[in-house]
Amino acid sequence: MRSMLILNGPNLNLLGTRQPEIYGSTTLADIEALCRAHAQKIGVDLTFAQSNHEGVLIDALHDARKTKDGVILNAGAYTHTSIALMDAIRSAEVPVIELHLSNIHARESYRHLSYISPVAIGLICGFGARGYTLAMDALYSHLEGIA
Amino acid sequence: MRSMLILNGPNLNLLGTRQPEIYGSTTLADIEALCRAHAQKIGVDLTFAQSNHEGVLIDALHDARKTKDGVILNAGAYTHTSIALMDAIRSAEVPVIELHLSNIHARESYRHLSYISPVAIGLICGFGARGYTLAMDALYSHLEGIA
Amino acid sequence: MRSMLILNGPNLNLLGTRQPEIYGSTTLADIEALCRAHAQKIGVDLTFAQSNHEGVLIDALHDARKTKDGVILNAGAYTHTSIALMDAIRSAEVPVIELHLSNIHARESYRHLSYISPVAIGLICGFGARGYTLAMDALYSHLEGIA
Amino acid sequence: MRSMLILNGPNLNLLGTRQPEIYGSTTLADIEALCRAHAQKIGVDLTFAQSNHEGVLIDALHDARKTKDGVILNAGAYTHTSIALMDAIRSAEVPVIELHLSNIHARESYRHLSYISPVAIGLICGFGARGYTLAMDALYSHLEGIA
Amino acid sequence: MRSMLILNGPNLNLLGTRQPEIYGSTTLADIEALCRAHAQKIGVDLTFAQSNHEGVLIDALHDARKTKDGVILNAGAYTHTSIALMDAIRSAEVPVIELHLSNIHARESYRHLSYISPVAIGLICGFGARGYTLAMDALYSHLEGIA
Amino acid sequence: MRSMLILNGPNLNLLGTRQPEIYGSTTLADIEALCRAHAQKIGVDLTFAQSNHEGVLIDALHDARKTKDGVILNAGAYTHTSIALMDAIRSAEVPVIELHLSNIHARESYRHLSYISPVAIGLICGFGARGYTLAMDALYSHLEGIA
Amino acid sequence: MRSMLILNGPNLNLLGTRQPEIYGSTTLADIEALCRAHAQKIGVDLTFAQSNHEGVLIDALHDARKTKDGVILNAGAYTHTSIALMDAIRSAEVPVIELHLSNIHARESYRHLSYISPVAIGLICGFGARGYTLAMDALYSHLEGIA
Amino acid sequence: MRSMLILNGPNLNLLGTRQPEIYGSTTLADIEALCRAHAQKIGVDLTFAQSNHEGVLIDALHDARKTKDGVILNAGAYTHTSIALMDAIRSAEVPVIELHLSNIHARESYRHLSYISPVAIGLICGFGARGYTLAMDALYSHLEGIA
Amino acid sequence: MRSMLILNGPNLNLLGTRQPEIYGSTTLADIEALCRAHAQKIGVDLTFAQSNHEGVLIDALHDARKTKDGVILNAGAYTHTSIALMDAIRSAEVPVIELHLSNIHARESYRHLSYISPVAIGLICGFGARGYTLAMDALYSHLEGIA
Amino acid sequence: MRSMLILNGPNLNLLGTRQPEIYGSTTLADIEALCRAHAQKIGVDLTFAQSNHEGVLIDALHDARKTKDGVILNAGAYTHTSIALMDAIRSAEVPVIELHLSNIHARESYRHLSYISPVAIGLICGFGARGYTLAMDALYSHLEGIA
Amino acid sequence: MRSMLILNGPNLNLLGTRQPEIYGSTTLADIEALCRAHAQKIGVDLTFAQSNHEGVLIDALHDARKTKDGVILNAGAYTHTSIALMDAIRSAEVPVIELHLSNIHARESYRHLSYISPVAIGLICGFGARGYTLAMDALYSHLEGIA
Amino acid sequence: MRSMLILNGPNLNLLGTRQPEIYGSTTLADIEALCRAHAQKIGVDLTFAQSNHEGVLIDALHDARKTKDGVILNAGAYTHTSIALMDAIRSAEVPVIELHLSNIHARESYRHLSYISPVAIGLICGFGARGYTLAMDALYSHLEGIA
Repeated sequence: MRSMLILNGPNLNLLGTRQPEIYGSTTLADIEALCRAHAQKIGVDLTFAQSNHEGVLIDALHDARKTKDGVILNAGAYTHTSIALMDAIRSAEVPVIELHLSNIHARESYRHLSYISPVAIGLICGFGARGYTLAMDALYSHLEGIA
Repeated sequence: MRSMLILNGPNLNLLGTRQPEIYGSTTLADIEALCRAHAQKIGVDLTFAQSNHEGVLIDALHDARKTKDGVILNAGAYTHTSIALMDAIRSAEVPVIELHLSNIHARESYRHLSYISPVAIGLICGFGARGYTLAMDALYSHLEGIA
Repeated sequence: MRSMLILNGPNLNLLGTRQPEIYGSTTLADIEALCRAHAQKIGVDLTFAQSNHEGVLIDALHDARKTKDGVILNAGAYTHTSIALMDAIRSAEVPVIELHLSNIHARESYRHLSYISPVAIGLICGFGARGYTLAMDALYSHLEGIA
Repeated sequence: MRSMLILNGPNLNLLGTRQPEIYGSTTLADIEALCRAHAQKIGVDLTFAQSNHEGVLIDALHDARKTKDGVILNAGAYTHTSIALMDAIRSAEVPVIELHLSNIHARESYRHLSYISPVAIGLICGFGARGYTLAMDALYSHLEGIA
Repeated sequence: MRSMLILNGPNLNLLGTRQPEIYGSTTLADIEALCRAHAQKIGVDLTFAQSNHEGVLIDALHDARKTKDGVILNAGAYTHTSIALMDAIRSAEVPVIELHLSNIHARESYRHLSYISPVAIGLICGFGARGYTLAMDALYSHLEGIA
Repeated sequence: MRSMLILNGPNLNLLGTRQPEIYGSTTLADIEALCRAHAQKIGVDLTFAQSNHEGVLIDALHDARKTKDGVILNAGAYTHTSIALMDAIRSAEVPVIELHLSNIHARESYRHLSYISPVAIGLICGFGARGYTLAMDALYSHLEGIA
Repeated sequence: MRSMLILNGPNLNLLGTRQPEIYGSTTLADIEALCRAHAQKIGVDLTFAQSNHEGVLIDALHDARKTKDGVILNAGAYTHTSIALMDAIRSAEVPVIELHLSNIHARESYRHLSYISPVAIGLICGFGARGYTLAMDALYSHLEGIA
Repeated sequence: MRSMLILNGPNLNLLGTRQPEIYGSTTLADIEALCRAHAQKIGVDLTFAQSNHEGVLIDALHDARKTKDGVILNAGAYTHTSIALMDAIRSAEVPVIELHLSNIHARESYRHLSYISPVAIGLICGFGARGYTLAMDALYSHLEGIA
Repeated sequence: MRSMLILNGPNLNLLGTRQPEIYGSTTLADIEALCRAHAQKIGVDLTFAQSNHEGVLIDALHDARKTKDGVILNAGAYTHTSIALMDAIRSAEVPVIELHLSNIHARESYRHLSYISPVAIGLICGFGARGYTLAMDALYSHLEGIA
Repeated sequence: MRSMLILNGPNLNLLGTRQPEIYGSTTLADIEALCRAHAQKIGVDLTFAQSNHEGVLIDALHDARKTKDGVILNAGAYTHTSIALMDAIRSAEVPVIELHLSNIHARESYRHLSYISPVAIGLICGFGARGYTLAMDALYSHLEGIA
Repeated sequence: MRSMLILNGPNLNLLGTRQPEIYGSTTLADIEALCRAHAQKIGVDLTFAQSNHEGVLIDALHDARKTKDGVILNAGAYTHTSIALMDAIRSAEVPVIELHLSNIHARESYRHLSYISPVAIGLICGFGARGYTLAMDALYSHLEGIA
Repeated sequence: MRSMLILNGPNLNLLGTRQPEIYGSTTLADIEALCRAHAQKIGVDLTFAQSNHEGVLIDALHDARKTKDGVILNAGAYTHTSIALMDAIRSAEVPVIELHLSNIHARESYRHLSYISPVAIGLICGFGARGYTLAMDALYSHLEGIA
């Protein structure tokens, strides 16, 4: 059975309460429930986590190295500023999918640069909560070698 | 029944024959078959097209305006240079999903700028042929209002 | 009798139907009618054309070389990306006036660069459909040497 | 009866005497005469002014606020450097048309940036003295709501 | 008794009448009254002035050199373009506080550069009319050496 | 009674001991005492905190969301690098005032960019410890709607 | 017998009639004759084509893939703007030589960037019509492995 | 007898009192005396003026057009920001020498750009008050055609 | 006896396991052993630490302020993004040597900018694990004043 | 009989021994032999030289001024840094052809800028040793006025 | 008696023969004669030298260190590229005046950057051969402390 | 026995006499003595050289190719401008260590770019004369394969 880590970065704990015109009203707990249901459906062992601390996210990626088959990372604003996170992904040696709720390339210019993209196998953004299950499907296909 | 247009840009007709280390060995005909099978599965009326001509792509987007519920656009290299295509998407007044086989943000810097992103509802890239069916799922969910 | 070509670029065929808050609700057919009426009034032989294809626009400028006294060019989004069109204007060897419905210098920064401006005799933008007849007056005065 | 202010900026008082290869040999007095004749023809109350002082131009725009229906502004070289003039136009709360004798976008790169463009309704440049009467027509149409 | 000059730059004479969504509806006369009341309260001799002319503002800073203990300068749009004003502050040899009604660093990018900041002792912006009395308190504390 | 959080970022715990020529010899404890005295004077419930950890500062802003009327944030060097902090301020949904001891715009160029400014209601910098009580006055006026 | 395609881009059909001070008075038909004579001399099967349409040029490069031993490409102004053409060259999987009549690096700065150069085996420019036969010699030597 | 105008820009009236480490302790009156003595020695009719107002400097250059043989311009900080002054020099149609007391190219980067240099015949800077008499010698030689 | 702190930043805990082509197969424990042996040899009291948390590194530098004679800092990817760390070094008031295993200036461009360099006494990079003992020698010499 | 100078810059003396994957295994002596054979064939008097010293290359261009009909210059890395060499070419007053073994525009970005290109009549690069005889043919045609 | 070195850089040996429209027809020998005459007149011991070799110029500046009172340096194109020359001037520890025949700031943009300016006491340019004697006067005054 | 070349670039011959606040008072002869003593201690055959001429340094690197085991290069200001030197290092095919007396990354921005770094195995800077023996140790370890 495949094991996945879905890792969420800064401010995502407030999801559903702040700026609903961009992020919608779904909370992170709602998303976790959606993902858990989907994991059960496609037969995947899921770990779901969030932290506002860059160091904690790095530690989590290090831990995933030997224990997970793949990672879905919504790094929030650290996407645009953290080379350390980029290096951690390189170290993780498991496939990582970059995920964002909103279409970061359609927003402010300082959100266009991503340090995650060059080390991720793929990117999904702009589909809100639905992006999480799409990313799970994409990661599953990647792990199974399905076109 | 939802109708979708999958529109492919320049050089994608050679898919499967050129640079397989980036794009894989699947041909565009293979992808069309995958998409048609998936369309049948999820109950969608699918149109699938390709052109190397910028003007033909613009015309196709104009035609989609009244006749399709949504568009999946893999604009190839025109992604990075065509403001006219961007304007055509704005004119299309149907939701457009930006799709790329490879992770454009992990490649050469001149492929990081996308004129499609600011007018697309979302972006999927880096998953090869699998990205097409993910995009169909994403578009379907968007049209049905599914989280 | 003076002969003029009014040449319209990509997406202008949809005028009056898309983004009326920027471009108004007048259609390209309405504008053509306005121009034809004005041509009759000032005694000018008018050709009016539109294409979404960059190559077709280049061909049209080549054709104008020997057959027209002047050109009014609304190049749409090709204004900002087409050096080939700029070269075609240089080759046309007839005076060309750059025209835009909206004030391109008051919009997004990627619309501020114009490859048409350095080779046009003058520029009129921001006056909607009214800009077409102003451009006809300006071209007529230029051809007649009227201050 | 509509009232218009035509406001001219630095160095335009020397028109007709300096750099005739760019600006022609017509003097500002000639242009004023042309404009006054045109004003009479279209039935407009015209004020015509010039100053080399940025502060005087700002004051004139403030005065136009309650007393004029529209302004035609040839701001000369202040076009490229004066954010204060841009703010004054915003404060004027009357429509302002940006006018230049030469095609500023076909000249030196430091003349391509205009602080006037983002706050003007439209721009006319490159038509020499003829541009003044074109601008009057454009402003008149704008005020009368004529397409 | 401490003497202060509050010097206001271009377009501030129209305060309260233009763009109230940014600057509020308070007029410059209202602000002068607020400042005069506050000056009386904290025991300060106040001069309050405004000009749209860069040269007049420079002259006023020169005059302040020997006659005032400090200056509060709201330079308006000259903030972003006037190196001459920056030099005048250096010449003034009295402490100068930079003041803006709105938060210039939260507005258009061309308002982010300030030639005043490098030569001012401090900066207060974003508090509307209230910023004037805050600046007076800050200047007073600075002059009295109060932490 | 209004409640305020004064939040201090990295290295501010060493205040008074490092680089006194820029920051003065006042310690953070001295400043806290000043603020507490001022809070008592103006009738405000004050929380005063400091951390060198970006994640801790984000958590603190999240906590302030429901429990404080406003925040004064001296983000130290995170001002210039943390988009995550910017997002946290947006999420906090309470007014935030940006505060710096020194005039950051008069220092090194890498301190001129602030991710806090675009989401703060106002900015006070350059007044040393005195800036804290000025910021409290400014926040108080803002909350009470005092001009 | 080696087969070569010489492919010419936009505006080259007007050669010999426009801007002779840069391009000389030789027409494209003259050049074709020169090339055909040279092809006969060195024993090469030559195809010679021109189009103003970017898509047509891409199609031609695709066709060359299986049918030609090498391509000489004078892409005209598309040299500087077309990433799609660059990708088409990559797909062509035959050696391509970049050719220009004029020395593009001695002209306007927007002609200095070439998307063709990074994917061409070599570049010849500045020798007018003579460059065509030089390029044929260079391509022949390359194919034959002659130093 | 040759006539020269020596024109001084903003803040130079305070010379000798501000920033003596850069500009020395000589006043503008001292410099005028030096220049008058030198004018008598070399047989030149001298006008010496200063203004803090950009518009006044432009007017003075216009007046010099018919009445002076040459101008020595120390434009102070307007050197770096005034395209209007540059245009006024072009209009003046007399030779203009650019002069600065300090070596502007050895100072802050915002003083490296000069709008005066491209329209001046030559530049002298860095020699303090001595630069004025050097400039007079240079202008005299230029007018007399002395190598 | 001299006391030194060797402080290691993010991802260095994984040394020897990730990307051996850049960093070699030596682990951080191996390096610590090398350093401890070298410390004994040259008579130095050594503290050796690592953290993935920016805040923890800042705290460690603060602690070193009174308790260590010098610091060797391998800040990993925080080198390129952390102004807060730079400020912490300034606050530390002990000499700091910047150390990297690889030659950061020979790698990706985003690793060329170092916020540590301007506040470090010297830099050693590119020598792998050997760099640690070279840095200890360099720091020792610096502390002892040995040329 | 035409006389040509072939001038080679820094590091070309090591040709054939260093980086054969870019420059091939042909030595400079091999190339000289090729060129001498070709010179005999086309009837040209050839001088062939190399130096690692910028000054020596400048001297050689000066000497060519009166004594040679044309120069072929492979300036090596000085191509990208030497404005002095550019000036020397301008002084040489004989036609100069720029030559490179490799396709400099397909290599590192710091090799894309050429100070030679703007003053050369044409450019040939990417054809290895074969480029030398192509350049000789090109120069010969240029001198003889052959299309 | 004061001793001066006048040092001339690359290509100046060809003066009077190349590009007379920029540099005039005076040769370097003519200039040396002018300078020697002027040296005799003002009582100065003059050394006059030229080299095309950067290293020779550096050596000459080193030699001037103990043996000359001042240097006038016309570094030609090395002005814009040689940091080594800049360092040599710093080492020379004698006053250096930067001299150019033409007005470098009115020419191509790559001639605007000068590495000499930041380490020279002053700059004279644009006065042709006359600039040499002006520079001698300026240096003499500087050495004698004459205003 | 290992053989090393220590190669010093422009202006280093003046070491100990110029700018001691940056480079200290040690002369190059002192450093050579230090290095010779250290070479004897670690058993290395040492060549020590200096030149102000770029070409001489290139020649020296060429000579080292077959005759030395490694090179320590202090290229002085040529570090920042010489691509030719970079190419010479590539040609040398022996390991090269980049050395600077001062911390170039803590100095002026034009000293931050190094053409040596991308082709050196490692970099040591900021330790004055001590850096030479550290570099010898580093090179020795590298040659011996010592961690």
